[in-house]
Amino acid sequence: MARFSVTFQPDQVSVAVPPETSVLEAAAMAGLRLHSPCGGQGRCGKCAVRILSGAGEATSLERGIFASEELAEGWRLACVTRVKGNVEVMVPPEALVVEHRIAVEGLGREILVEPNVQKLALHLAAPSVDDPRADLLRLTEALGGRLGAPDSLRMVRELPGVLREAGYRITTVVVGDALAAIEPGDTAQASYGVAVDIGTTTVVAYLCHLPTGEVAATASGLNPQARYGEDVISRLRLASFEADGLEQLRCAASGAINDLIGRATKEAGVGRKSIYELSVVGNTCMTHLLLGLPPVGLAALPFVPAFREAQYVRAAELGISIHPEGRVYVAPNIGGFVGADTVAVILASELDHTDGLQVAVDIGTNGEIVVAKDTELYACSTAAGPAFEGARINQGMRAAAGAIDEVRVDDDLAYHVLGDGKPSGICGSGLVDAVAELVRVGVVEGGGRLRRPEDVGSVPEKVRRRLIENDGEVQFVLAWGEESGSGKDIAISARDVRELQLAKSAIYAGISILLEKLGHRPAEVERLLLAGAFGNYIRRESAVAIGLIPALPLERIHPIGNAAGLGARLMLASVSLRRRAEEIAERVEHIDLSQQEGFYERFAEAMALRPLP
Amino acid sequence: MARFSVTFQPDQVSVAVPPETSVLEAAAMAGLRLHSPCGGQGRCGKCAVRILSGAGEATSLERGIFASEELAEGWRLACVTRVKGNVEVMVPPEALVVEHRIAVEGLGREILVEPNVQKLALHLAAPSVDDPRADLLRLTEALGGRLGAPDSLRMVRELPGVLREAGYRITTVVVGDALAAIEPGDTAQASYGVAVDIGTTTVVAYLCHLPTGEVAATASGLNPQARYGEDVISRLRLASFEADGLEQLRCAASGAINDLIGRATKEAGVGRKSIYELSVVGNTCMTHLLLGLPPVGLAALPFVPAFREAQYVRAAELGISIHPEGRVYVAPNIGGFVGADTVAVILASELDHTDGLQVAVDIGTNGEIVVAKDTELYACSTAAGPAFEGARINQGMRAAAGAIDEVRVDDDLAYHVLGDGKPSGICGSGLVDAVAELVRVGVVEGGGRLRRPEDVGSVPEKVRRRLIENDGEVQFVLAWGEESGSGKDIAISARDVRELQLAKSAIYAGISILLEKLGHRPAEVERLLLAGAFGNYIRRESAVAIGLIPALPLERIHPIGNAAGLGARLMLASVSLRRRAEEIAERVEHIDLSQQEGFYERFAEAMALRPLP
Repeated sequence: MARFSVTFQPDQVSVAVPPETSVLEAAAMAGLRLHSPCGGQGRCGKCAVRILSGAGEATSLERGIFASEELAEGWRLACVTRVKGNVEVMVPPEALVVEHRIAVEGLGREILVEPNVQKLALHLAAPSVDDPRADLLRLTEALGGRLGAPDSLRMVRELPGVLREAGYRITTVVVGDALAAIEPGDTAQASYGVAVDIGTTTVVAYLCHLPTGEVAATASGLNPQARYGEDVISRLRLASFEADGLEQLRCAASGAINDLIGRATKEAGVGRKSIYELSVVGNTCMTHLLLGLPPVGLAALPFVPAFREAQYVRAAELGISIHPEGRVYVAPNIGGFVGADTVAVILASELDHTDGLQVAVDIGTNGEIVVAKDTELYACSTAAGPAFEGARINQGMRAAAGAIDEVRVDDDLAYHVLGDGKPSGICGSGLVDAVAELVRVGVVEGGGRLRRPEDVGSVPEKVRRRLIENDGEVQFVLAWGEESGSGKDIAISARDVRELQLAKSAIYAGISILLEKLGHRPAEVERLLLAGAFGNYIRRESAVAIGLIPALPLERIHPIGNAAGLGARLMLASVSLRRRAEEIAERVEHIDLSQQEGFYERFAEAMALRPLP
Repeated sequence: MARFSVTFQPDQVSVAVPPETSVLEAAAMAGLRLHSPCGGQGRCGKCAVRILSGAGEATSLERGIFASEELAEGWRLACVTRVKGNVEVMVPPEALVVEHRIAVEGLGREILVEPNVQKLALHLAAPSVDDPRADLLRLTEALGGRLGAPDSLRMVRELPGVLREAGYRITTVVVGDALAAIEPGDTAQASYGVAVDIGTTTVVAYLCHLPTGEVAATASGLNPQARYGEDVISRLRLASFEADGLEQLRCAASGAINDLIGRATKEAGVGRKSIYELSVVGNTCMTHLLLGLPPVGLAALPFVPAFREAQYVRAAELGISIHPEGRVYVAPNIGGFVGADTVAVILASELDHTDGLQVAVDIGTNGEIVVAKDTELYACSTAAGPAFEGARINQGMRAAAGAIDEVRVDDDLAYHVLGDGKPSGICGSGLVDAVAELVRVGVVEGGGRLRRPEDVGSVPEKVRRRLIENDGEVQFVLAWGEESGSGKDIAISARDVRELQLAKSAIYAGISILLEKLGHRPAEVERLLLAGAFGNYIRRESAVAIGLIPALPLERIHPIGNAAGLGARLMLASVSLRRRAEEIAERVEHIDLSQQEGFYERFAEAMALRPLP
């Protein structure tokens, strides 16, 4: 059979094809994937190419799409043009499908970018007496007719005006399988989403360019709900039992997100109206409050959330200012106190597709623990508490500029300050480090007692002098007033040590109970992942030394950064990963520690400040 | 194999079944269809029956659903209970699926009621430490897990409160495949919809009980948009080119619907909140205005609507006061001037499944014509005009109380008045009748001229005396001042005859052009359906006599009442018929008469006031 050669420029790739093959098929044989959202029906105009030689007569479809000078230059639709001789084709870059992949930092893998929001620039044929199709039908047919009905009346209302004013050159915004909006001209690249990790204490927003998955800007700030209560429990009470309490907390959450979006869009030079979707993770209470769902079921046993499965909500309904038809994807949660943030950690760390015995610990205001082995996944939440974020600690603070985050004791004490300025407080990792060192040199007893100066004769003088009495309470000074930002001493009190013990024993007991469910002991853990800011700053040696985590060889312990935020970004970048998150939420077995036999004994045992097996 | 007998009360039907058959299956064998929306998984509790003898131990599922005294009385789930011996079962009426059918008046057929809105009363198991499922998951699993995510944030927000306050006895409202609302207690029978036919001049609303399809109340009134312009064209102009014009017309339409709903609900003693859905038909312009869609494309050739396919919109978005999550289904249209009302006429008259050559004519402010043969369907709209609804006629009025609707001429003139009171004007059918009679006796010439008194020597004296001159114009008096409501003569002018000629020749020309498309002549029509109020009141003899419709034997001409309104009710009552309406809109070929060769000649020929072949 006769074959003709088709050469694609500018790459100069050639293939030999039978007569009547479409240029679109020939391109596929040559390894070039061209856009054809209408399914090769000649309607969408996305596969427009320029035939440099061998162009035949234009079809009536093509005469509807191209101006006569374009036709004269050889512009044709690849799906409609059939090969009838040797052909040379110039493929413009906009006709090529570019597969974007993003690297996932720290995890050594790439994901395919497949956002839920797709923008597509189209040049529709104008209506005529022979083609008086309705505006909406003209549009959906150009998109291949595979969409559901638009659920946006606003879009249908704008359609007649936009089509006519823009000369039928428009960009469609498809969210999921619904046509959400249209815009005049080609705005396909102005397409953004925001991944949000809303923590009890901190909120982080990543502004992402959807077509490429790249982060355009990041912004973070304190959760303003903290003004109504530092911990989850006090906010639950306010939202469940006080008039307007839920609405106040809801507005605080959406206000915080609006602020972060404002900062990120300003930094990146992006308009808010170019943001079409948010993906949100957070603990179960935080996602309830953001959605304005009464968390009455979370306030008491058996801790029942209002929803488990992922929710899609209009951003406007939450008071979040993005595109007026923008949506908010709230990731699924696992149970009463194990939320979408834990789903995100599992997704980011791939604990759902793991070999061997692995543990992830995400320490924020709450501490969530996941244990994975093969296909089994268990998760729990501990009231580990805000100690690691500096709350309930006398001079505690978040891991921000001015926080003492590392402490060493030799002849005297040395510390490191975040931001390298003067110290103004102590953050979670600094507290763990300090207590670990004080236990090592004998200033703090294994049981947690802070010794009096007269009981520590063996420690170096400069260290001993840091033990002072203040209002009858013993304190250990990390930084003297002359060194500090405020001019006041920065010290650890006996009560601070106690808070740390309560927090760390909850984590340790949680890890060991979950492992027991799988029939394992802590020493058998092959990989222990530390998620969250705290996990990034903490010295692994110290965490092991005070028995916060099991005494594993250090090479098995890996900080993985803000895995919850990364998971939110992955869910924004890929609908496949969104589905995977939903499978995770369904698969994970939620363990309520307080209902586990032996939990309180385990908790009490883990109070000791020493390496725990 | 052993078989056991299962006897169902109160009908005393018995079947013999193998051991371990479920009572649900046994019921099906006995011809009893029981509710099992959860798919026989023991979750929804809808197949509860009372085992009178032969009840075994209750399962844990059943212990979660029934109180212990209920279990003791023999209450069990038919889907879970297995036959292990002879069993006698009492089936409560609420467990039986009742198939409702409604008769379609005048068409001699019944349809199965399958509304888009389904209400279902459920008694969910309360959460426990062993079953801490999320509220929403508990609900969707009880519904069989076949629903999409709820698109109502309001519903999810109300869910935790309603479940707990109602002791987990609730009624769900499912619209399409989405969970739209929940209500405390059993409100399954409080389920209504409204079918709306929004005409250029008149709006009709049918309040229907969705579970049975029965009409609970009907209300109709004038379309208040008329104050902005009597015909479609003036409203199109206002909506397309005047600031706020569209919004004024939109509000007038939704206001009219709200008024009618108010009257119908009052009459039927039904709450507005028990209405979950509207189905709306109307001409293309009316549905655009109701939806607030700019009809710019309809204002000029090639007459492009904004949408063709059916639209689902939130009632609240249109300002229509029903249940806050209620929806409005706007039926599909066919083209620029052939709207959803014509789709409804075709659906009601089954012209899409017809044998032989049939014609339907719906005469309202516009006149729409459909010609059907086997699988072929053609439709057009004529500017027949408001003459048939009394507009542009000197003393014209709608077919309401006081309208002269029948006229006979013998020695003198006799007329009939709607409502049997004094006459106050003349309606379309009265005008057709009067002109037909005046042509017969020679007062009006076939060409349309109203003769002067001196030219009609042969007509009876009492008739001749009715020809008077008024401001130099000849008029024919139907009712003298002493008989009329206002004390003024009610007369037909030469211009009125001219208006009628223009209107009727447009209809006749439309019919004959569409028939020609199918290769037929008017005389070959096997059935000609007259839809609309006008079609109900008109004397067929007169319509034939003046050449409004082809000169067919009278037995082939059938008035079918408000077929558009009936079609709207059918779309409300049955999702299958809704799909069929959408197929109709796709299948019908829309003919733009003004673009047809020979139309104007045909139009001019049909001006003659005589029977036309």
